[in-house]
Amino acid sequence: MNFPKGQSRYSTTAKTNKEPIIFGDRGMTLEQEINESNNYYRNHQLGVIYKKPTPIQIVKVDYPKRSRAVIKEAYFRQASTTDYNGVYRGYYIDFEAKETRHKTSIPLSNFHEHQITHLQQCLDQKGICFVIIKFVTLQRYFVLPASDLINFWQRAKQGGKKSMSLQFITNKAIEIHAGYNPILPYLTACEQLIQGDK
Amino acid sequence: MNFPKGQSRYSTTAKTNKEPIIFGDRGMTLEQEINESNNYYRNHQLGVIYKKPTPIQIVKVDYPKRSRAVIKEAYFRQASTTDYNGVYRGYYIDFEAKETRHKTSIPLSNFHEHQITHLQQCLDQKGICFVIIKFVTLQRYFVLPASDLINFWQRAKQGGKKSMSLQFITNKAIEIHAGYNPILPYLTACEQLIQGDK
Repeated sequence: MNFPKGQSRYSTTAKTNKEPIIFGDRGMTLEQEINESNNYYRNHQLGVIYKKPTPIQIVKVDYPKRSRAVIKEAYFRQASTTDYNGVYRGYYIDFEAKETRHKTSIPLSNFHEHQITHLQQCLDQKGICFVIIKFVTLQRYFVLPASDLINFWQRAKQGGKKSMSLQFITNKAIEIHAGYNPILPYLTACEQLIQGDK
Repeated sequence: MNFPKGQSRYSTTAKTNKEPIIFGDRGMTLEQEINESNNYYRNHQLGVIYKKPTPIQIVKVDYPKRSRAVIKEAYFRQASTTDYNGVYRGYYIDFEAKETRHKTSIPLSNFHEHQITHLQQCLDQKGICFVIIKFVTLQRYFVLPASDLINFWQRAKQGGKKSMSLQFITNKAIEIHAGYNPILPYLTACEQLIQGDK
């Protein structure tokens, strides 16, 4: 893929992101890295991908005079999908992101049944589905096709391993390397999935 | 499209929707009708489309012992996208839904700049983008291609009409008719958009 020359990461971010700007990658969460990458992709017309808002059950709202509504009682709800979706070159993109501090594996307990179900449903509709896994202490990032995660999940339910080893992941996933424009070039891995390289 | 024979709308709904079940279409909001249709499409493997949660800025959360977290202060945030997206037969689907009690037109004030921008960005990525418009008093529903809405919006900014007439909509949109399985068969209109009939 050719990425058009653009502004530096920070000025690009400042225009669109209302979150505080974090200078330097160290200490950024995977979510922040993906959000910044999505800003970059959107600003450069390379893809339109967003994190979905956290679902909230609102119980009580106050409407004070002359100021905006305040939610006074609400609860977190269980999401029914993955966290990220969008469109890239006509393809539907859907993924979940997980980070782990383990060094040699990622336990399946990081994933939830509803995420597996949702990924399978999207695969059935010919979506491009995967998970981005960050090994925090190793500073390594992988794009693992949803089909491999789902297969592993099904085997685990029948008594198989409950944790995906780093070796399994290096075999099945596409490794991506953190950079600047974007921080996480995961659409390059997407393109490989689309071309059927993996 | 062929819809497989399924369970009645109500039993289908009861399995997946935690909202109270509303018997009878009269009085259902457009949002409820679309959500029920999305449940139907998902349960019949015809498409995976969800309404996105409302974005909330959380300020204060209490964690009472032995019970779940309670959000005690939060604010509604401006959404940056449309309300609905998902995947259908490999296509990325993105749309907004609006209802009006007007009988002969729908004012552009129902739409927001960020929705127009988002629809254009998704069109640029070859998404299937549209708005579903419900004329409540007429009980008529239309699937209007995003490109027609965007063109109208641009003309309005240059001094053109500020309201889309029913005649404009009947010319440009695909009319859909409320039924039972699903309540709003809007993917049939999507299919027409994909085939380029409209």
